[in-house]
Amino acid sequence: MNYSSSPIGIFDSGLGGLTVFKAVKDLLPCEKLIYFGDTARVPYGTKSRNAVISFSKEISGYLLLKKVKMLIVACNTATSLALPEIRRMSQVPVCGVIEPGVKAAIAATPYGGKILVIGTKATISSHAYAKALAKANKNIEVMEQSCPLFVPLVEEGWTDKAVTEEAALEYLAPYRSKKINTLILGCTHYPLIEKVVRRVMGNEVHIVNSAMAAAYASRQILQENNLLAKSFRKGPDRFIVSDAPEHFSKMADMLLGLKPDKVTIKRF
Amino acid sequence: MNYSSSPIGIFDSGLGGLTVFKAVKDLLPCEKLIYFGDTARVPYGTKSRNAVISFSKEISGYLLLKKVKMLIVACNTATSLALPEIRRMSQVPVCGVIEPGVKAAIAATPYGGKILVIGTKATISSHAYAKALAKANKNIEVMEQSCPLFVPLVEEGWTDKAVTEEAALEYLAPYRSKKINTLILGCTHYPLIEKVVRRVMGNEVHIVNSAMAAAYASRQILQENNLLAKSFRKGPDRFIVSDAPEHFSKMADMLLGLKPDKVTIKRF
Repeated sequence: MNYSSSPIGIFDSGLGGLTVFKAVKDLLPCEKLIYFGDTARVPYGTKSRNAVISFSKEISGYLLLKKVKMLIVACNTATSLALPEIRRMSQVPVCGVIEPGVKAAIAATPYGGKILVIGTKATISSHAYAKALAKANKNIEVMEQSCPLFVPLVEEGWTDKAVTEEAALEYLAPYRSKKINTLILGCTHYPLIEKVVRRVMGNEVHIVNSAMAAAYASRQILQENNLLAKSFRKGPDRFIVSDAPEHFSKMADMLLGLKPDKVTIKRF
Repeated sequence: MNYSSSPIGIFDSGLGGLTVFKAVKDLLPCEKLIYFGDTARVPYGTKSRNAVISFSKEISGYLLLKKVKMLIVACNTATSLALPEIRRMSQVPVCGVIEPGVKAAIAATPYGGKILVIGTKATISSHAYAKALAKANKNIEVMEQSCPLFVPLVEEGWTDKAVTEEAALEYLAPYRSKKINTLILGCTHYPLIEKVVRRVMGNEVHIVNSAMAAAYASRQILQENNLLAKSFRKGPDRFIVSDAPEHFSKMADMLLGLKPDKVTIKRF
């Protein structure tokens, strides 16, 4: 049996993974996608390792039952804490967001230099980026900064307000004098406030968007496994959340211009 | 059997209810308290009615099994959405935070006037305060404003930062010209940023702290039911959370100077 016509499963703690959804959709318009947002338990970034692993396994199991041909873990927190566990339980390829982000950052910093990773508390304290960057290039100095308020700011729709800039200054001002070469947006919510981060950090920093990087990596994995859709798959993509589908719909439109046909609910 | 020596059960979505815990402790030092914080699913304020009811019933059932003599729902969101359901399942008195807050606000506005209620999205869209205030005094004009960022700001420990003031301005500036008489802090997290709210709203507004009001109401309920502890109960209070006990401990100390002996974990 050929699975190339099966859908791709994408999940996140909430809305942030929609930046990955959109990047995948733009890059691979023939593919059918199933998106799951764990809106009943969002955010993940302030929760413990055990909680994030348990939530991620539950959702992965649910998507695997829907016969997806690949899983995209569109959440940096879930990737940094639960990727090995998800890979262990999955018969299909699993793509996280960290390896692709690291590759893109290394490519953007070819002569070595300073890379700043920003993300949730859980992602930063896992040091998943720092370890992978150190392994990839010894001439790189890595700095890490957690920015816990960024996710609630995005979920509030405050993507370009004075308060968002104030929060960005609070977290990032200490790095402005450090001659950072590359900054990794190590959370799938952060591309939505890239403009603010850019204003605070200046024009000389190269900003890596891990959502875009994950979309390219997913395409490569599908190619290598001969799983790319052979033709356009009709019908709408599916959106499933664990709570508050109306709010999800509204925010998907407001933040990304996505207009889900229907958002269904699945409680755990 | 006399239950007066049994503990009091208090729960919240996370840390905010500790303001109620502290107020009860200060007012009733002889009582033994069991505090539950649902840190695996915090925040509640952005979740749906069904989700909040289901979480609240689960936790109430758990505390009732521990033979508490009274339940204090130290969360405005859970009170506004789930109080009737909790009362239905409980054999012991249940005290929410809204009725006490309303009584205190009415007492503070004896000649009628304008009352502004601030709270989470869920609390505000339930209109629980507005309905109760309208019923209590017809000469009161009620305004309601949700402030979703305040909970994450408090959970981040940013109780007195420029970014917090900027967020407060974003939410509250439109009310500064409206001659508000009384403002209800309709979320148990908000007493921790009362100073910032005060700065934005000026010195003439009467601010009602629903945590304090709930503590007084709890004492009255215990008195009326002959359930007040007859003597000092030795041994530490108990703290139980559904995730990340160390973080809870740290924040309890940082925000309120509480130093829990031990924080245990209970997952649902």
